[in-house]
Amino acid sequence: MTSIVTLTTDFGSRDPYVAAMKGTILGIHPEVRMVDVSHEIASQDIMEAAFVLKGVVPFFPPGTIHLVVVDPGVGTVRRPVAARFQEQVFVGPDNGIFSLILDEKLPDELVVLDRRKYWRSEAPSNTFHGRDIFAPVAAHLAAGRSLEEVGTATETPLVRLRWALPISDEQGIRGWVVHVDRFGNCITNITEEQFESQRLGRDIKTYAGTSILKGVQSTYGDVAQGEPLVLIGSRGFLEIAVNGGNASELLSIRKGAPVNIVFADKKQNEQII
Amino acid sequence: MTSIVTLTTDFGSRDPYVAAMKGTILGIHPEVRMVDVSHEIASQDIMEAAFVLKGVVPFFPPGTIHLVVVDPGVGTVRRPVAARFQEQVFVGPDNGIFSLILDEKLPDELVVLDRRKYWRSEAPSNTFHGRDIFAPVAAHLAAGRSLEEVGTATETPLVRLRWALPISDEQGIRGWVVHVDRFGNCITNITEEQFESQRLGRDIKTYAGTSILKGVQSTYGDVAQGEPLVLIGSRGFLEIAVNGGNASELLSIRKGAPVNIVFADKKQNEQII
Amino acid sequence: MTSIVTLTTDFGSRDPYVAAMKGTILGIHPEVRMVDVSHEIASQDIMEAAFVLKGVVPFFPPGTIHLVVVDPGVGTVRRPVAARFQEQVFVGPDNGIFSLILDEKLPDELVVLDRRKYWRSEAPSNTFHGRDIFAPVAAHLAAGRSLEEVGTATETPLVRLRWALPISDEQGIRGWVVHVDRFGNCITNITEEQFESQRLGRDIKTYAGTSILKGVQSTYGDVAQGEPLVLIGSRGFLEIAVNGGNASELLSIRKGAPVNIVFADKKQNEQII
Repeated sequence: MTSIVTLTTDFGSRDPYVAAMKGTILGIHPEVRMVDVSHEIASQDIMEAAFVLKGVVPFFPPGTIHLVVVDPGVGTVRRPVAARFQEQVFVGPDNGIFSLILDEKLPDELVVLDRRKYWRSEAPSNTFHGRDIFAPVAAHLAAGRSLEEVGTATETPLVRLRWALPISDEQGIRGWVVHVDRFGNCITNITEEQFESQRLGRDIKTYAGTSILKGVQSTYGDVAQGEPLVLIGSRGFLEIAVNGGNASELLSIRKGAPVNIVFADKKQNEQII
Repeated sequence: MTSIVTLTTDFGSRDPYVAAMKGTILGIHPEVRMVDVSHEIASQDIMEAAFVLKGVVPFFPPGTIHLVVVDPGVGTVRRPVAARFQEQVFVGPDNGIFSLILDEKLPDELVVLDRRKYWRSEAPSNTFHGRDIFAPVAAHLAAGRSLEEVGTATETPLVRLRWALPISDEQGIRGWVVHVDRFGNCITNITEEQFESQRLGRDIKTYAGTSILKGVQSTYGDVAQGEPLVLIGSRGFLEIAVNGGNASELLSIRKGAPVNIVFADKKQNEQII
Repeated sequence: MTSIVTLTTDFGSRDPYVAAMKGTILGIHPEVRMVDVSHEIASQDIMEAAFVLKGVVPFFPPGTIHLVVVDPGVGTVRRPVAARFQEQVFVGPDNGIFSLILDEKLPDELVVLDRRKYWRSEAPSNTFHGRDIFAPVAAHLAAGRSLEEVGTATETPLVRLRWALPISDEQGIRGWVVHVDRFGNCITNITEEQFESQRLGRDIKTYAGTSILKGVQSTYGDVAQGEPLVLIGSRGFLEIAVNGGNASELLSIRKGAPVNIVFADKKQNEQII
């Protein structure tokens, strides 16, 4: 089967950086199948890369190689690594970009990329390891090399950036918006699982931006055109959206904004309804 | 021959939605060849998707599968469909996105996508049928399934959005701008055919934005650098452009702006010239 | 080996132009491997296209075909050409877009594209030779046709746009910023070779925008977070950057801005340090 290499970077689509990586990969393994995840990650925003990656990895087949280059520490001591986890492979700088994929778990295999023979043949630049180290290693992995061939096993764990968890008690949950997508949907760090296990079937009110929203809908069309709603999004996180509109703009909710969910007791329910 | 799947969405290039669709497709049919048409369709702008699609379909080979996901009604009653038309296949929501491709004609085959075995194995989300229904179905079609395998034939016609036609009489044509491209070229809904059949060789004046333009040129370089012109564009529609410049900005013409063409009689010609 | 066709245009990612080219290519040679270099070249900016192309060509394998369509003179007298140079092939309008790749050298082979049988079968439009001439020719070349099959050899040299060279004397070098990348890194036209051969190991001060910078660093992390620096970038040009920041914004340096390097004599060094 043809190997798949996905690419996630903060290089944008105007500069020649992504194509330089792709040319390097094709020079090593012409039969590779490359899929762009995103090159529009905000500059050097490691957590955005981690979030986007988390949204795509579950949908790729086993054996996929994910090349992730958001690398503010390029040329410094941060380690270049490759890791195997749930039958997929991750290649990039060890700066936290794999935190959300791994969650609290350990990779099945982890190597430091220290074998120059799998890098670009010229001496690597100090500023573009994506092209000179990560892309060639991903290409060699796609061509069938094993992790232990391209690097040296390490016990030192990957850097973890913690995506601070929502705070919750019996009365409610306080989380925040971790991503605003192109439609203005505001995706929070509150998972469906956490939400349902705390809610226990009670009615809810959600305080977000300029609005207070009642209940949880199952899709946008459950409210009238232009009306805001709370729903569990396609990736299993609680989202604030507007049917046919842009929730971020209409409700003044930006990335990082707090979202408070209050569970109603029986009496409050009656007052609300 | 390898199957081609094109993708047209309003998902943008920053979020993980497009890559989640591509991963899903590759998991079902690894040998597919995917081509991005555009992911920058204005949010939920069905007619823009229809217009962009019309501009690319004639250039793809027979057997191409066009996956189109601009889907404001996701999760509501709008039907998920697949249609065969002129040896190509179209997959997406039945909300009018195929109107301009079909023009006034009927598809050769039309099915409602109601067979869960060709969807993603998990229960589909209510908000992302692109990933959970349309992408898997397109992948199965690319892998050789027929339309009648993936859905049930229907006699209920596709939703048609009408692109209001230009108004015309002996003196002239009144149309409007349906698309402004990246260069600022303003593409109208007046076709070459309609224009020539009404014009009957007469001279013309075109009123558009802040300008009155004389005649029809055959290419940008027919007028001086910075000068506006009227021409028949590469897709057979009348366009307003500026040689080496941005007609939309320079002439204050936006999407939806009226364009009036006045045919000159002999006497008027003399006055103009 | 599968042929690679790269695409570099100023068509943007919203309009159907790029996909129309890709469909045309796939219709002629379905097995081609297409790689987008950039479609976000500033409208009709031939030198930006030339610069981006220079940044990717060295990383692609021999036999790659580079299709470059930044074509303000479409439909006028500028020649459609294909050229072979250093085992790669270039297809596009003869308007200077290949200047930086060729530097001062001559292509190994140069033909004018005058054979209609390798164009799109319908009469070519006057405004979209990318789709009607260049894409089909690139596809035929990818499918194995030779340059002399698709065009007629010519002795008339390619149009050259000169990227004005930096001025230098014993005291210093004066160059300018030719590209600002997505990170705000300001790339000058001063090459590492010219810089080192003039500098002769002396200390330097660089005057750029609102700042005077001392020395040359080897990577961003060599200065504190938020501090500006001078370095030799990954493509061999002198760059002005800010560690973890946007040099263009922070130092008010735009494309075209002058960059003055002053070499210190021993006495000056002592004063600086």
